[in-house]
Order: sequence, then structure tokens, then C-alpha cells
Amino acid sequence: MTSRVMVTGGAGFIGSHLIDLLVEAGNEVVIYDNFSSGRHEFVADNLKNPAVSLVKADLLDLKSLVVAMKGVDQVYHLAANPDIRLGTEVTDTDLKQGTVATYNVLEAMRLAGTKKIAFASSSVVYGEAAVMPTPEDYGPLFPISLYGASKLAGEALITSWVGTFGLQAWLFRFANIVGERGTHGVIFDFIHKLKADPARLEVLGDGHQAKSYMEVRDCARAMVHLVSSQNEAVNFFNLGSGDVCSVARIAEVVVEESGFPEVSIEYTGGSRGWAGDVAKASLAVEKLNATNFATNFDSEAAVRHTARALIQEIGLHEI
Amino acid sequence: MTSRVMVTGGAGFIGSHLIDLLVEAGNEVVIYDNFSSGRHEFVADNLKNPAVSLVKADLLDLKSLVVAMKGVDQVYHLAANPDIRLGTEVTDTDLKQGTVATYNVLEAMRLAGTKKIAFASSSVVYGEAAVMPTPEDYGPLFPISLYGASKLAGEALITSWVGTFGLQAWLFRFANIVGERGTHGVIFDFIHKLKADPARLEVLGDGHQAKSYMEVRDCARAMVHLVSSQNEAVNFFNLGSGDVCSVARIAEVVVEESGFPEVSIEYTGGSRGWAGDVAKASLAVEKLNATNFATNFDSEAAVRHTARALIQEIGLHEI
Repeated sequence: MTSRVMVTGGAGFIGSHLIDLLVEAGNEVVIYDNFSSGRHEFVADNLKNPAVSLVKADLLDLKSLVVAMKGVDQVYHLAANPDIRLGTEVTDTDLKQGTVATYNVLEAMRLAGTKKIAFASSSVVYGEAAVMPTPEDYGPLFPISLYGASKLAGEALITSWVGTFGLQAWLFRFANIVGERGTHGVIFDFIHKLKADPARLEVLGDGHQAKSYMEVRDCARAMVHLVSSQNEAVNFFNLGSGDVCSVARIAEVVVEESGFPEVSIEYTGGSRGWAGDVAKASLAVEKLNATNFATNFDSEAAVRHTARALIQEIGLHEI
Repeated sequence: MTSRVMVTGGAGFIGSHLIDLLVEAGNEVVIYDNFSSGRHEFVADNLKNPAVSLVKADLLDLKSLVVAMKGVDQVYHLAANPDIRLGTEVTDTDLKQGTVATYNVLEAMRLAGTKKIAFASSSVVYGEAAVMPTPEDYGPLFPISLYGASKLAGEALITSWVGTFGLQAWLFRFANIVGERGTHGVIFDFIHKLKADPARLEVLGDGHQAKSYMEVRDCARAMVHLVSSQNEAVNFFNLGSGDVCSVARIAEVVVEESGFPEVSIEYTGGSRGWAGDVAKASLAVEKLNATNFATNFDSEAAVRHTARALIQEIGLHEI
């Protein structure tokens, strides 16, 4: 069944891949993006399709959001500050672009009568979990980054709207999502560092940080699959590929794919990259797999695929 | 060891009882309150003490808060909208007076160098928990009221400040706190209803709602005890008396204490009082009890004590 779908952050890295799938399935799609990290070229092809429209506005602009929400059946709320590390320097970005923006999405849905929301939450809501791989019912939830706090606050706002105003929700706790069109993250950073200095790659921390990775099209496919197949009031799933990849291994893979013959990989030391960085994160994905879903890439394959794609996009060997 | 302590919401119901204990222990105390539900008479006696000062300001006024925070060693952050039901009608109260206010407290602490925060969270962060009595490590945390969402958002902001900026935190998930100086809640409502009509008491829901109650001085004692005895980076405890009391029993107790001879107790029906009301909540308190703490009142005794006190305060038999 097709319907009218809004994707917040729809011109961004993950959003634009989701738009590809939603358009392919014949939905009417409203892209809502402030283009703080989204890019026109990520959605330019789809915007040629008359079923796709673009609202260039901020989620903090509740009036524009309420207007755009009219007639929308389903929201995928993906917009957020994508840079976790920023919270160590600017403390109100995640509060505003995360928590308050999510409140505005919910309030616009209430005013417009929209009943279904899927939300891009994150594995960082688990903080430094004592259980790994970490299952969806793990507690307590003590995020250690301001970004993580905004994701948990977003989940809580959504479940409160379910309980109070009768919404239906799909909460997706993302692993590190990587792939084509990536605009941030460790692989992106490594390639830019190598472009600046092909002889030396500085890695934050001791390299033993290890996390779950998921290829972005696997992530988009999983979201669409779960929204169409899961029908609880609150549906909640870890989205990951079931294994982990270390930062040291990512550095090796990026160097291999770079083609540069002699790169010295240097570690700054310490167990984490920065204050608020979760050094080890492994997501249990049995719940996802039990819905008859399989990823195409494991963590290392997703990393290698991404390194290849971003080396092309960034133009590592161009001057 | 005494220190300089700020209590947000210090002129309120729970805050004013906490102030009594902190002053008695010889601390310098800063009461920060906007008097939206706090009352001057609750703190008037303590304000005669030169160690106690009052800042009449809103937590949304970050500038005033930063000034007041200077030299403060420990914050007890209790201020919040006390009326859970309000979220069904006004959706931004808990976001502003809960989540954003907590952000401001943390930001003021960061700017002033204050390192210790105790937070009045709530059992409603557990939502409709599948496990009862509910232990502190229960997951997932899906609050169903907007108030509950703001409490979970507050916890998450605090743990993110611990992880990112080195704070130390004590998170207290309160049962229903009742007692002298109560300004809201089911016992308060019942007495006001009886004052308006001594022949009839309307009860929202079917009366089978059952929750954990805790007497307010037990609650204040538990907070001071845990802050002085527990020393993890994040210390988190349910605060309750270990049992539950049903709404039907509360109605009977209030009627008994009222002295009115023939009150007809009438139920509106339905399993919950309003949308977002958690009908059944039972807090596990083994973790609290293991710290060598004991309450003076169980749930029903706390309810009866409160009914007696509030009947005096409200003046049930006065015209």
C-alpha cells in the first residue's frame, strides 16, 4: 500500500537512500530538510518525479512543519545533528536539533492528525552497556554523549505521544551507518586526513574502539521492511549487521583501499576518541533477523564498500 | 561535611522538606524557585536562618541561574511541572519546565564548575513495565506521559554530562510522594472534592489503579542518605516504600479520615485515570534497602498520614 510519507532529513546521507526506496515503491514523498548537512545532489534525481516534493525549512519552524504535515500518513524522522563530537563544544545543538525538533514533529503530527512515526534513534542510547551484544530491552539507559541524550529524549517523547495521543511508532536504534553519500564519521575523516597527508594517518584513541557498522542501503531496507511488517503500538529494533569492526581495522582497510603505498598509522592513545565517545558498542540483532531480514554486508564489508565509494566521491587522488 | 547546596523547586512540596533536613545538617542552602507551585510559607522559617538564601527566578532564565550557581557544590534538582495530567492538554510544559530547565541546570553547573547533581526522576520513566516490582535496571524505558518523557530526558541529559563533562549524579526514581504540604495528587484532589460535596466522591478510573507511595520526609531522608553514602559516577535508585496502595483503598482511607458519615464513592470506570496515566506501578526497593535505609511509613500508612495532614491544611470542615 502506498501512502503520503514525510522524511525529515530526507536530503541527508541516510534520508536520501530511504527516499530512493520510498519513491521506488510508489509513495508520495515529502522531503523536509534544512540542508544543514543534506545536499541537493542527493535528491536531485528523485525531485524530477512529480510524486516527490521538497520543503526546505528547519524543524524548529513549527509553522512550516504543520503546513507540510497536512495529509501525511507516515513520518520517517531522521533529521538531527549528525556530529556526535560537537556536543563536547556546543551544548545546545542536540537539545535543539534533536529533542526540541522531535517535539515539533510530534506536535505537528498531533495538529495534522498524522498517526505513524518511524524514528532514527541510535545505539548510543545504551551508553557504556554492561551486556554485549546489547539487546533492545537492556537497561539502564545512560547515554554518555549529548547526542545520545537527545536520541533517548526523542524516543521518550515518541512513546509518550503513543501513550497519550494514540500514535504508532517504530524506533530504530542504529549501529554506525556507513556507505555512499556519507558526510561524516570515521571513514570519511580518515579519507580526508589521507588526502591532506598521504604519508600519515592519525587515529584518535588506541584503535581498540570497536563498534557495529551497517551499510546505509541495508539500513534503509530494514526500516521500510519493519514499518510494513511490524504492527505493535511501539515497535523497537536494533539495526546493525550483527558483528563489530575495530577502529584499527577501519584504518587498515581505508589505507588498503587508498592505494597509497606507505602510510604510517599513528594512534593518539587512550581508550576512547573523545569525551562522550562510546569505545565499545555491539548491537544484538536477533530481533531484526527474526523478522526475516538479512543484511547484504557485515561490518567490515560495509566499511570496505564505504571506503571505496567515499574515495571516489571525495576524490582522494585529485589535487 | 557541610557544603553549599542549591535546591531547585526548594519552596515546593518535596523541596521544602529537603530544605528542612539540609539546614538542620548545617549546610548553606540556596533555594531556587519560581513559585509556580512553591509557597513562601513552606520555607519562611528556614529563611530566618542566615545560612539560607532565596533566589526567586525561573530555571528558563539561564543568566540568573548561572549567577546563583556560583560557589554551589551540590545541586538537588527537584523543580518541575508537578501535574502529570496537564500534558494531555498543554504539550510544551514538560518540555520547557522539565527537559529544557534540566539542560539549563546542567549548563549553569558546567559554567560555574559545580560537579554534583541529585535529580528527582520518577517511576513513570518505566511506563507500563512488564516486570513488577520494577527494578532499576529494567528496560525498555517507554514512558507514556509527557511528564515521564521529560523525566527520562532529564536523566539522559544528566548522564551525558557525567560522560562528557565529568559530573557526578544521583538519580532518584520517585514513587508517588505524599505528605504534609502536598499541593497536588490524588489525596489532595479527593479532599477538595469532599470539601465541595461531602456526600459524594468521584474517582477517575475503576479504582483498581495501584501504585507505590512514599511519605515525603522518608523521601527527603532517603535522598540525603544516598547522596552522602553512595559514590559511583551515576548512582540510581528507586525511592519507595516497597508496597502499593490502590486508588479504591485511598478513597476509603480519605473518607474514613474525613469523618463524613455517608460518602458515596463513585467510579468513572476504565482501567486508568486519564490518557498517559500508568494504572499499575510497583517499585522494587531492594537496592535502597541494601544501603541500610528504612522508611517510617508503608504505602497505606503514608496515605493515611497524608490524608490527616491535608485535611487539617485544607480545612475540610471549614466553610
